[in-house]
Amino acid sequence: MTADTRTTVGVLRQAVASFVDERDWQPFHSPKNLSMSIAIEAAELMERFQWLTTEEARSAVEDPVELAAVTDELADIVIYCLSLSNALDLDVSSSVLGKLQTNEYRYPAQEFRGRFRRPERERRDLDRD
Amino acid sequence: MTADTRTTVGVLRQAVASFVDERDWQPFHSPKNLSMSIAIEAAELMERFQWLTTEEARSAVEDPVELAAVTDELADIVIYCLSLSNALDLDVSSSVLGKLQTNEYRYPAQEFRGRFRRPERERRDLDRD
Amino acid sequence: MTADTRTTVGVLRQAVASFVDERDWQPFHSPKNLSMSIAIEAAELMERFQWLTTEEARSAVEDPVELAAVTDELADIVIYCLSLSNALDLDVSSSVLGKLQTNEYRYPAQEFRGRFRRPERERRDLDRD
Amino acid sequence: MTADTRTTVGVLRQAVASFVDERDWQPFHSPKNLSMSIAIEAAELMERFQWLTTEEARSAVEDPVELAAVTDELADIVIYCLSLSNALDLDVSSSVLGKLQTNEYRYPAQEFRGRFRRPERERRDLDRD
Repeated sequence: MTADTRTTVGVLRQAVASFVDERDWQPFHSPKNLSMSIAIEAAELMERFQWLTTEEARSAVEDPVELAAVTDELADIVIYCLSLSNALDLDVSSSVLGKLQTNEYRYPAQEFRGRFRRPERERRDLDRD
Repeated sequence: MTADTRTTVGVLRQAVASFVDERDWQPFHSPKNLSMSIAIEAAELMERFQWLTTEEARSAVEDPVELAAVTDELADIVIYCLSLSNALDLDVSSSVLGKLQTNEYRYPAQEFRGRFRRPERERRDLDRD
Repeated sequence: MTADTRTTVGVLRQAVASFVDERDWQPFHSPKNLSMSIAIEAAELMERFQWLTTEEARSAVEDPVELAAVTDELADIVIYCLSLSNALDLDVSSSVLGKLQTNEYRYPAQEFRGRFRRPERERRDLDRD
Repeated sequence: MTADTRTTVGVLRQAVASFVDERDWQPFHSPKNLSMSIAIEAAELMERFQWLTTEEARSAVEDPVELAAVTDELADIVIYCLSLSNALDLDVSSSVLGKLQTNEYRYPAQEFRGRFRRPERERRDLDRD
Protein backbone atom coordinates (compact mmCIF):
# COMPACT_ATOMS: atom_id res chain seq x y z
CA MET A 1 0.00 0.00 0.00
CA THR A 2 2.59 2.49 -1.14
CA ALA A 3 0.33 5.39 -2.12
CA ASP A 4 -2.03 4.77 0.83
CA THR A 5 0.77 5.54 3.30
CA ARG A 6 1.01 9.12 2.05
CA THR A 7 -2.43 9.90 0.55
CA THR A 8 -4.94 11.55 2.87
CA VAL A 9 -8.64 10.75 2.77
CA GLY A 10 -9.15 14.44 2.05
CA VAL A 11 -7.18 14.24 -1.20
CA LEU A 12 -9.36 11.36 -2.42
CA ARG A 13 -12.54 13.15 -1.34
CA GLN A 14 -11.42 16.24 -3.24
CA ALA A 15 -10.78 14.19 -6.40
CA VAL A 16 -14.27 12.68 -6.18
CA ALA A 17 -15.83 16.10 -5.50
CA SER A 18 -14.16 17.58 -8.58
CA PHE A 19 -15.36 14.72 -10.76
CA VAL A 20 -18.94 15.20 -9.54
CA ASP A 21 -18.81 18.99 -9.76
CA GLU A 22 -17.47 19.04 -13.32
CA ARG A 23 -20.56 17.07 -14.39
CA ASP A 24 -23.10 18.90 -12.19
CA TRP A 25 -23.97 15.53 -10.73
CA GLN A 26 -24.75 16.77 -7.18
CA PRO A 27 -28.53 16.47 -7.82
CA PHE A 28 -28.06 12.77 -8.60
CA HIS A 29 -25.67 12.25 -5.70
CA SER A 30 -28.37 12.55 -3.04
CA PRO A 31 -28.06 10.46 0.16
CA LYS A 32 -30.78 8.04 -0.93
CA ASN A 33 -29.32 7.54 -4.40
CA LEU A 34 -25.77 7.14 -3.11
CA SER A 35 -26.86 4.53 -0.59
CA MET A 36 -28.28 2.57 -3.54
CA SER A 37 -25.12 3.14 -5.56
CA ILE A 38 -22.92 1.73 -2.81
CA ALA A 39 -25.17 -1.35 -2.59
CA ILE A 40 -25.18 -1.78 -6.37
CA GLU A 41 -21.39 -1.66 -6.58
CA ALA A 42 -21.12 -3.99 -3.58
CA ALA A 43 -23.24 -6.46 -5.54
CA GLU A 44 -20.88 -6.22 -8.51
CA LEU A 45 -18.05 -7.07 -6.14
CA MET A 46 -20.01 -10.04 -4.75
CA GLU A 47 -20.64 -11.22 -8.30
CA ARG A 48 -16.92 -12.03 -8.62
CA PHE A 49 -17.27 -14.60 -5.80
CA GLN A 50 -20.92 -15.64 -6.22
CA TRP A 51 -20.43 -19.27 -7.20
CA LEU A 52 -17.09 -19.93 -5.53
CA THR A 53 -16.61 -21.51 -2.12
CA THR A 54 -14.93 -19.33 0.48
CA GLU A 55 -11.65 -21.13 -0.29
CA GLU A 56 -12.01 -20.90 -4.07
CA ALA A 57 -12.61 -17.17 -3.77
CA ARG A 58 -9.39 -16.83 -1.83
CA SER A 59 -7.49 -18.63 -4.60
CA ALA A 60 -9.24 -16.74 -7.39
CA VAL A 61 -7.79 -13.41 -6.30
CA GLU A 62 -4.27 -14.77 -6.63
CA ASP A 63 -4.78 -14.42 -10.37
CA PRO A 64 -3.70 -10.86 -11.27
CA VAL A 65 -6.50 -10.49 -13.83
CA GLU A 66 -9.13 -11.39 -11.24
CA LEU A 67 -7.44 -9.23 -8.62
CA ALA A 68 -7.57 -6.26 -11.00
CA ALA A 69 -11.31 -6.80 -11.52
CA VAL A 70 -11.90 -6.98 -7.77
CA THR A 71 -9.79 -3.85 -7.20
CA ASP A 72 -11.86 -2.05 -9.78
CA GLU A 73 -15.14 -2.96 -8.08
CA LEU A 74 -13.79 -1.95 -4.68
CA ALA A 75 -12.73 1.43 -6.11
CA ASP A 76 -16.31 2.01 -7.28
CA ILE A 77 -17.66 1.35 -3.79
CA VAL A 78 -15.11 3.62 -2.12
CA ILE A 79 -15.78 6.41 -4.65
CA TYR A 80 -19.49 6.41 -3.78
CA CYS A 81 -18.67 6.30 -0.04
CA LEU A 82 -16.47 9.36 -0.48
CA SER A 83 -19.15 11.10 -2.52
CA LEU A 84 -21.66 10.50 0.28
CA SER A 85 -19.19 11.89 2.83
CA ASN A 86 -18.87 14.96 0.57
CA ALA A 87 -22.63 15.33 0.16
CA LEU A 88 -23.18 15.14 3.93
CA ASP A 89 -19.95 16.91 4.93
CA LEU A 90 -18.96 14.00 7.15
CA ASP A 91 -15.47 13.24 8.37
CA VAL A 92 -14.65 9.69 7.28
CA SER A 93 -11.48 9.31 9.35
CA SER A 94 -13.00 10.24 12.67
CA SER A 95 -16.12 8.16 12.04
CA VAL A 96 -14.00 5.10 11.14
CA LEU A 97 -11.67 5.51 14.12
CA GLY A 98 -14.64 6.26 16.39
CA LYS A 99 -16.50 3.16 15.22
CA LEU A 100 -13.45 0.95 15.76
CA GLN A 101 -13.23 2.27 19.31
CA THR A 102 -16.92 1.48 19.89
CA ASN A 103 -16.32 -2.00 18.50
CA GLU A 104 -13.39 -2.48 20.90
CA TYR A 105 -15.97 -2.43 23.69
CA ARG A 106 -18.62 -4.40 21.88
CA TYR A 107 -16.28 -7.15 20.77
CA PRO A 108 -13.67 -7.51 23.55
CA ALA A 109 -10.62 -9.19 22.02
CA GLN A 110 -10.28 -11.89 24.65
CA GLU A 111 -13.94 -12.89 24.29
CA PHE A 112 -14.14 -12.84 20.50
CA ARG A 113 -10.72 -14.22 19.63
CA GLY A 114 -11.26 -16.58 16.71
CA ARG A 115 -15.04 -16.34 16.97
CA PHE A 116 -17.46 -13.85 15.49
CA ARG A 117 -20.26 -14.15 18.04
CA ARG A 118 -21.05 -15.22 21.53
CA PRO A 119 -22.74 -18.63 21.85
CA GLU A 120 -26.07 -17.12 22.89
CA ARG A 121 -26.16 -14.85 19.82
CA GLU A 122 -28.33 -17.15 17.69
CA ARG A 123 -31.26 -17.11 20.07
CA ARG A 124 -31.19 -13.33 20.45
CA ASP A 125 -31.16 -12.91 16.68
CA LEU A 126 -34.35 -14.83 16.32
CA ASP A 127 -36.09 -12.76 18.95
CA ARG A 128 -35.19 -9.60 17.08
CA ASP A 129 -37.55 -8.81 14.25
CA MET B 1 -13.63 17.26 7.08
CA THR B 2 -10.97 18.33 9.54
CA ALA B 3 -9.37 14.96 10.32
CA ASP B 4 -9.68 13.76 6.72
CA THR B 5 -7.31 16.51 5.54
CA ARG B 6 -4.46 15.07 7.58
CA THR B 7 -5.32 11.36 7.99
CA THR B 8 -3.83 9.01 5.41
CA VAL B 9 -5.70 5.98 4.12
CA GLY B 10 -2.79 3.93 5.43
CA VAL B 11 -3.44 5.04 9.00
CA LEU B 12 -7.08 3.92 8.76
CA ARG B 13 -6.07 0.63 7.14
CA GLN B 14 -3.61 0.01 9.96
CA ALA B 15 -6.28 0.66 12.59
CA VAL B 16 -8.62 -1.83 10.90
CA ALA B 17 -5.82 -4.39 10.53
CA SER B 18 -4.99 -4.16 14.25
CA PHE B 19 -8.63 -4.62 15.20
CA VAL B 20 -8.90 -7.74 13.02
CA ASP B 21 -5.52 -9.14 14.11
CA GLU B 22 -6.26 -8.77 17.82
CA ARG B 23 -9.29 -11.00 17.36
CA ASP B 24 -7.71 -13.48 14.91
CA TRP B 25 -10.51 -12.63 12.53
CA GLN B 26 -8.50 -13.02 9.31
CA PRO B 27 -10.14 -16.42 8.57
CA PHE B 28 -13.56 -14.72 8.61
CA HIS B 29 -12.34 -11.72 6.62
CA SER B 30 -12.01 -13.67 3.38
CA PRO B 31 -12.73 -11.87 0.07
CA LYS B 32 -16.09 -13.61 -0.38
CA ASN B 33 -17.24 -12.88 3.18
CA LEU B 34 -16.08 -9.26 3.07
CA SER B 35 -17.93 -8.66 -0.20
CA MET B 36 -21.08 -9.85 1.60
CA SER B 37 -20.27 -7.69 4.64
CA ILE B 38 -19.96 -4.56 2.50
CA ALA B 39 -23.32 -5.33 0.87
CA ILE B 40 -24.95 -6.03 4.25
CA GLU B 41 -23.76 -2.73 5.72
CA ALA B 42 -24.78 -0.92 2.52
CA ALA B 43 -28.27 -2.30 3.07
CA GLU B 44 -28.31 -0.95 6.62
CA LEU B 45 -27.43 2.45 5.19
CA MET B 46 -30.24 2.16 2.61
CA GLU B 47 -32.64 1.26 5.39
CA ARG B 48 -32.33 4.83 6.72
CA PHE B 49 -33.81 6.14 3.45
CA GLN B 50 -36.00 3.19 2.38
CA TRP B 51 -39.41 4.81 2.63
CA LEU B 52 -38.43 8.42 2.04
CA THR B 53 -38.58 10.23 -1.28
CA THR B 54 -35.27 11.48 -2.62
CA GLU B 55 -36.12 14.92 -1.24
CA GLU B 56 -37.29 13.67 2.16
CA ALA B 57 -34.03 11.75 2.53
CA ARG B 58 -32.11 14.95 1.90
CA SER B 59 -34.06 16.71 4.65
CA ALA B 60 -33.80 13.79 7.06
CA VAL B 61 -30.03 14.03 7.27
CA GLU B 62 -30.29 17.64 8.43
CA ASP B 63 -31.36 16.19 11.78
CA PRO B 64 -28.13 15.58 13.76
CA VAL B 65 -29.51 12.35 15.26
CA GLU B 66 -30.26 10.94 11.83
CA LEU B 67 -26.94 12.19 10.46
CA ALA B 68 -25.12 10.40 13.28
CA ALA B 69 -26.91 7.15 12.41
CA VAL B 70 -26.01 7.54 8.73
CA THR B 71 -22.39 8.34 9.60
CA ASP B 72 -22.25 5.22 11.70
CA GLU B 73 -23.50 3.02 8.84
CA LEU B 74 -21.06 4.60 6.40
CA ALA B 75 -18.20 3.91 8.83
CA ASP B 76 -19.16 0.22 8.85
CA ILE B 77 -19.01 0.07 5.05
CA VAL B 78 -15.66 1.84 4.87
CA ILE B 79 -14.20 -0.40 7.60
CA TYR B 80 -15.03 -3.52 5.58
CA CYS B 81 -13.65 -1.91 2.40
CA LEU B 82 -10.39 -1.22 4.21
CA SER B 83 -10.33 -4.75 5.59
CA LEU B 84 -10.70 -6.13 2.07
CA SER B 85 -7.87 -3.90 0.86
CA ASN B 86 -5.77 -5.30 3.72
CA ALA B 87 -6.74 -8.89 2.95
CA LEU B 88 -5.82 -8.46 -0.72
CA ASP B 89 -2.92 -6.04 -0.18
CA LEU B 90 -4.49 -3.52 -2.56
CA ASP B 91 -3.70 0.16 -2.71
CA VAL B 92 -6.98 2.02 -2.24
CA SER B 93 -5.68 5.47 -3.18
CA SER B 94 -4.23 4.50 -6.53
CA SER B 95 -7.24 2.38 -7.43
CA VAL B 96 -9.63 5.25 -6.59
CA LEU B 97 -7.59 7.84 -8.47
CA GLY B 98 -7.07 5.41 -11.35
CA LYS B 99 -10.80 4.67 -11.59
CA LEU B 100 -11.67 8.38 -11.58
CA GLN B 101 -9.25 8.87 -14.47
CA THR B 102 -10.88 6.01 -16.41
CA ASN B 103 -14.27 7.57 -15.71
CA GLU B 104 -13.03 10.92 -17.07
CA TYR B 105 -12.85 9.22 -20.48
CA ARG B 106 -16.01 7.19 -20.12
CA TYR B 107 -18.12 10.12 -18.96
CA PRO B 108 -16.73 13.20 -20.74
CA ALA B 109 -17.80 16.25 -18.69
CA GLN B 110 -19.25 18.19 -21.60
CA GLU B 111 -21.39 15.21 -22.71
CA PHE B 112 -22.63 14.15 -19.27
CA ARG B 113 -23.11 17.56 -17.67
CA GLY B 114 -26.33 17.35 -15.68
CA ARG B 115 -27.19 13.93 -17.10
CA PHE B 116 -26.18 10.47 -16.00
CA ARG B 117 -26.47 8.67 -19.32
CA ARG B 118 -26.51 9.17 -23.02
CA PRO B 119 -29.97 9.06 -24.62
CA GLU B 120 -29.32 5.72 -26.35
CA ARG B 121 -28.34 4.07 -23.05
CA GLU B 122 -31.72 2.52 -22.35
CA ARG B 123 -31.75 0.40 -25.46
CA ARG B 124 -28.24 -0.91 -24.91
CA ASP B 125 -29.13 -1.85 -21.37
CA LEU B 126 -31.93 -4.04 -22.50
CA ASP B 127 -29.73 -5.84 -25.00
CA ARG B 128 -27.27 -6.63 -22.27
CA ASP B 129 -28.21 -9.68 -20.30
CA MET C 1 -52.05 -11.19 -13.65
CA THR C 2 -53.74 -13.79 -15.82
CA ALA C 3 -51.32 -16.70 -15.41
CA ASP C 4 -50.73 -15.95 -11.72
CA THR C 5 -54.38 -16.66 -10.94
CA ARG C 6 -53.99 -20.27 -12.00
CA THR C 7 -50.29 -21.05 -11.55
CA THR C 8 -49.29 -22.59 -8.24
CA VAL C 9 -46.03 -21.76 -6.50
CA GLY C 10 -45.27 -25.48 -6.73
CA VAL C 11 -45.34 -25.41 -10.53
CA LEU C 12 -42.82 -22.57 -10.60
CA ARG C 13 -40.64 -24.29 -8.02
CA GLN C 14 -40.68 -27.45 -10.11
CA ALA C 15 -39.64 -25.54 -13.24
CA VAL C 16 -36.71 -23.99 -11.38
CA ALA C 17 -35.74 -27.36 -9.87
CA SER C 18 -35.66 -28.98 -13.31
CA PHE C 19 -33.51 -26.19 -14.71
CA VAL C 20 -31.01 -26.57 -11.86
CA ASP C 21 -31.06 -30.39 -11.96
CA GLU C 22 -30.44 -30.58 -15.71
CA ARG C 23 -27.22 -28.63 -15.19
CA ASP C 24 -26.13 -30.34 -11.94
CA TRP C 25 -26.07 -26.90 -10.36
CA GLN C 26 -27.16 -28.00 -6.87
CA PRO C 27 -23.57 -27.68 -5.55
CA PHE C 28 -23.55 -24.01 -6.61
CA HIS C 29 -27.07 -23.40 -5.31
CA SER C 30 -26.05 -23.57 -1.66
CA PRO C 31 -27.88 -21.36 0.88
CA LYS C 32 -24.96 -18.95 1.20
CA ASN C 33 -24.49 -18.60 -2.56
CA LEU C 34 -28.21 -18.20 -3.21
CA SER C 35 -28.50 -15.46 -0.59
CA MET C 36 -25.77 -13.61 -2.52
CA SER C 37 -27.51 -14.30 -5.83
CA ILE C 38 -30.76 -12.80 -4.59
CA ALA C 39 -28.89 -9.70 -3.39
CA ILE C 40 -27.00 -9.43 -6.69
CA GLU C 41 -30.18 -9.60 -8.76
CA ALA C 42 -31.88 -7.14 -6.39
CA ALA C 43 -29.03 -4.74 -7.11
CA GLU C 44 -29.62 -5.12 -10.86
CA LEU C 45 -33.24 -4.20 -10.26
CA MET C 46 -32.21 -1.16 -8.20
CA GLU C 47 -29.88 -0.12 -11.00
CA ARG C 48 -32.93 0.64 -13.15
CA PHE C 49 -34.01 3.32 -10.65
CA GLN C 50 -30.63 4.39 -9.23
CA TRP C 51 -30.52 7.98 -10.47
CA LEU C 52 -34.25 8.65 -10.71
CA THR C 53 -36.34 10.37 -8.07
CA THR C 54 -39.11 8.28 -6.55
CA GLU C 55 -41.54 10.00 -8.92
CA GLU C 56 -39.35 9.64 -12.02
CA ALA C 57 -39.01 5.92 -11.31
CA ARG C 58 -42.79 5.64 -11.22
CA SER C 59 -43.03 7.30 -14.64
CA ALA C 60 -40.14 5.31 -16.11
CA VAL C 61 -41.97 2.01 -15.74
CA GLU C 62 -44.85 3.32 -17.84
CA ASP C 63 -42.54 2.81 -20.81
CA PRO C 64 -43.08 -0.80 -22.00
CA VAL C 65 -39.37 -1.22 -22.81
CA GLU C 66 -38.37 -0.19 -19.29
CA LEU C 67 -41.17 -2.28 -17.78
CA ALA C 68 -39.90 -5.33 -19.66
CA ALA C 69 -36.41 -4.76 -18.27
CA VAL C 70 -37.76 -4.43 -14.73
CA THR C 71 -39.90 -7.56 -15.16
CA ASP C 72 -36.84 -9.44 -16.29
CA GLU C 73 -34.84 -8.43 -13.21
CA LEU C 74 -37.72 -9.32 -10.91
CA ALA C 75 -37.95 -12.76 -12.54
CA ASP C 76 -34.26 -13.35 -11.75
CA ILE C 77 -34.83 -12.52 -8.08
CA VAL C 78 -37.89 -14.76 -7.82
CA ILE C 79 -36.10 -17.63 -9.54
CA TYR C 80 -33.32 -17.57 -6.95
CA CYS C 81 -35.88 -17.32 -4.13
CA LEU C 82 -37.60 -20.40 -5.47
CA SER C 83 -34.28 -22.21 -5.84
CA LEU C 84 -33.50 -21.46 -2.19
CA SER C 85 -36.90 -22.77 -1.16
CA ASN C 86 -36.10 -25.94 -3.14
CA ALA C 87 -32.64 -26.27 -1.61
CA LEU C 88 -34.05 -25.94 1.91
CA ASP C 89 -37.35 -27.71 1.24
CA LEU C 90 -39.30 -24.72 2.56
CA ASP C 91 -42.92 -23.96 1.86
CA VAL C 92 -43.06 -20.47 0.35
CA SER C 93 -46.82 -20.05 0.55
CA SER C 94 -47.17 -20.81 4.23
CA SER C 95 -44.14 -18.72 5.15
CA VAL C 96 -45.49 -15.73 3.17
CA LEU C 97 -48.98 -16.03 4.63
CA GLY C 98 -47.56 -16.65 8.09
CA LYS C 99 -45.32 -13.59 7.89
CA LEU C 100 -48.21 -11.40 6.75
CA GLN C 101 -50.18 -12.57 9.77
CA THR C 102 -47.27 -11.71 12.09
CA ASN C 103 -47.06 -8.31 10.44
CA GLU C 104 -50.78 -7.75 11.05
CA TYR C 105 -49.95 -7.67 14.75
CA ARG C 106 -46.70 -5.74 14.41
CA TYR C 107 -48.18 -3.07 12.19
CA PRO C 108 -51.82 -2.62 13.29
CA ALA C 109 -53.68 -1.05 10.36
CA GLN C 110 -55.25 1.77 12.36
CA GLU C 111 -51.89 2.79 13.83
CA PHE C 112 -49.83 2.57 10.66
CA ARG C 113 -52.35 3.90 8.15
CA GLY C 114 -50.41 6.15 5.78
CA ARG C 115 -47.25 5.94 7.90
CA PHE C 116 -44.46 3.41 7.90
CA ARG C 117 -43.30 3.84 11.50
CA ARG C 118 -44.36 5.05 14.87
CA PRO C 119 -43.02 8.48 15.85
CA GLU C 120 -40.70 7.06 18.50
CA ARG C 121 -39.10 4.69 15.97
CA GLU C 122 -36.13 6.90 15.15
CA ARG C 123 -34.83 6.97 18.72
CA ARG C 124 -35.13 3.21 19.12
CA ASP C 125 -33.23 2.67 15.88
CA LEU C 126 -30.28 4.64 17.09
CA ASP C 127 -30.11 2.67 20.33
CA ARG C 128 -29.94 -0.52 18.35
CA ASP C 129 -26.46 -1.35 17.13
CA MET D 1 -43.93 -28.04 -0.03
CA THR D 2 -47.49 -29.04 0.80
CA ALA D 3 -49.22 -25.66 0.57
CA ASP D 4 -47.13 -24.59 -2.43
CA THR D 5 -48.61 -27.42 -4.53
CA ARG D 6 -52.09 -25.92 -4.25
CA THR D 7 -51.52 -22.18 -3.62
CA THR D 8 -51.49 -19.95 -6.67
CA VAL D 9 -49.20 -16.96 -7.00
CA GLY D 10 -52.35 -14.90 -7.38
CA VAL D 11 -53.58 -15.86 -3.90
CA LEU D 12 -50.28 -14.71 -2.36
CA ARG D 13 -50.33 -11.51 -4.40
CA GLN D 14 -53.84 -10.79 -3.20
CA ALA D 15 -52.85 -11.31 0.43
CA VAL D 16 -49.95 -8.87 0.03
CA ALA D 17 -52.18 -6.35 -1.79
CA SER D 18 -54.75 -6.43 1.03
CA PHE D 19 -52.06 -5.89 3.65
CA VAL D 20 -50.70 -2.88 1.77
CA ASP D 21 -54.15 -1.47 0.99
CA GLU D 22 -55.38 -1.67 4.58
CA ARG D 23 -52.49 0.57 5.61
CA ASP D 24 -52.61 2.93 2.60
CA TRP D 25 -49.00 2.01 1.95
CA GLN D 26 -49.15 2.25 -1.86
CA PRO D 27 -47.34 5.63 -1.81
CA PHE D 28 -44.41 3.98 -0.01
CA HIS D 29 -44.51 0.90 -2.23
CA SER D 30 -43.15 2.70 -5.28
CA PRO D 31 -40.91 0.77 -7.70
CA LYS D 32 -37.74 2.54 -6.48
CA ASN D 33 -38.53 1.96 -2.80
CA LEU D 34 -39.51 -1.67 -3.35
CA SER D 35 -36.31 -2.39 -5.24
CA MET D 36 -34.43 -1.09 -2.16
CA SER D 37 -36.67 -3.14 0.15
CA ILE D 38 -35.91 -6.35 -1.71
CA ALA D 39 -32.18 -5.61 -1.49
CA ILE D 40 -32.44 -4.76 2.23
CA GLU D 41 -34.24 -8.00 3.03
CA ALA D 42 -31.79 -9.94 0.85
CA ALA D 43 -29.01 -8.49 3.00
CA GLU D 44 -30.75 -9.70 6.15
CA LEU D 45 -30.85 -13.16 4.62
CA MET D 46 -27.13 -12.95 3.75
CA GLU D 47 -26.40 -11.90 7.32
CA ARG D 48 -27.38 -15.41 8.47
CA PHE D 49 -24.47 -16.85 6.42
CA GLN D 50 -22.03 -13.93 6.47
CA TRP D 51 -19.18 -15.49 8.45
CA LEU D 52 -19.81 -19.14 7.59
CA THR D 53 -18.03 -21.08 4.85
CA THR D 54 -20.25 -22.41 2.10
CA GLU D 55 -20.23 -25.79 3.86
CA GLU D 56 -20.90 -24.40 7.33
CA ALA D 57 -23.90 -22.49 5.97
CA ARG D 58 -25.27 -25.73 4.58
CA SER D 59 -24.98 -27.36 8.01
CA ALA D 60 -26.36 -24.34 9.87
CA VAL D 61 -29.75 -24.62 8.19
CA GLU D 62 -30.13 -28.18 9.46
CA ASP D 63 -30.86 -26.58 12.83
CA PRO D 64 -34.65 -25.94 12.91
CA VAL D 65 -34.16 -22.63 14.77
CA GLU D 66 -31.79 -21.34 12.11
CA LEU D 67 -34.00 -22.69 9.32
CA ALA D 68 -36.96 -20.81 10.79
CA ALA D 69 -34.94 -17.57 10.80
CA VAL D 70 -33.89 -18.12 7.16
CA THR D 71 -37.47 -18.94 6.16
CA ASP D 72 -38.61 -15.72 7.77
CA GLU D 73 -36.08 -13.62 5.85
CA LEU D 74 -36.99 -15.33 2.58
CA ALA D 75 -40.67 -14.58 3.21
CA ASP D 76 -39.83 -10.88 3.58
CA ILE D 77 -38.05 -10.88 0.21
CA VAL D 78 -40.89 -12.69 -1.54
CA ILE D 79 -43.49 -10.37 -0.02
CA TYR D 80 -41.73 -7.32 -1.46
CA CYS D 81 -41.36 -9.07 -4.84
CA LEU D 82 -45.09 -9.72 -4.86
CA SER D 83 -45.81 -6.13 -3.84
CA LEU D 84 -43.71 -4.90 -6.76
CA SER D 85 -45.58 -7.20 -9.13
CA ASN D 86 -48.82 -5.71 -7.76
CA ALA D 87 -47.56 -2.13 -8.09
CA LEU D 88 -46.53 -2.74 -11.71
CA ASP D 89 -49.33 -5.16 -12.59
CA LEU D 90 -46.83 -7.76 -13.76
CA ASP D 91 -47.46 -11.45 -14.13
CA VAL D 92 -44.88 -13.26 -12.02
CA SER D 93 -45.58 -16.75 -13.35
CA SER D 94 -45.14 -15.94 -17.01
CA SER D 95 -42.06 -13.82 -16.37
CA VAL D 96 -40.45 -16.62 -14.34
CA LEU D 97 -41.31 -19.31 -16.89
CA GLY D 98 -40.27 -17.00 -19.73
CA LYS D 99 -36.94 -16.24 -18.12
CA LEU D 100 -36.23 -19.93 -17.52
CA GLN D 101 -36.88 -20.57 -21.21
CA THR D 102 -34.47 -17.77 -22.18
CA ASN D 103 -31.90 -19.26 -19.84
CA GLU D 104 -32.35 -22.66 -21.50
CA TYR D 105 -30.80 -21.10 -24.61
CA ARG D 106 -28.20 -19.03 -22.80
CA TYR D 107 -26.99 -21.89 -20.64
CA PRO D 108 -27.33 -25.07 -22.73
CA ALA D 109 -27.47 -28.01 -20.31
CA GLN D 110 -24.76 -30.04 -22.04
CA GLU D 111 -22.35 -27.11 -22.05
CA PHE D 112 -22.96 -25.89 -18.51
CA ARG D 113 -23.37 -29.22 -16.74
CA GLY D 114 -21.56 -28.90 -13.43
CA ARG D 115 -20.07 -25.53 -14.37
CA PHE D 116 -21.48 -22.03 -14.05
CA ARG D 117 -19.56 -20.37 -16.86
CA ARG D 118 -17.68 -21.02 -20.02
CA PRO D 119 -13.88 -20.97 -19.68
CA GLU D 120 -13.53 -17.70 -21.60
CA ARG D 121 -16.00 -15.94 -19.31
CA GLU D 122 -13.40 -14.34 -17.06
CA ARG D 123 -11.77 -12.33 -19.82
CA ARG D 124 -15.08 -11.04 -21.14
CA ASP D 125 -16.09 -9.97 -17.65
CA LEU D 126 -13.05 -7.77 -17.31
CA ASP D 127 -13.72 -6.10 -20.65
CA ARG D 128 -17.20 -5.22 -19.52
CA ASP D 129 -17.34 -2.10 -17.42
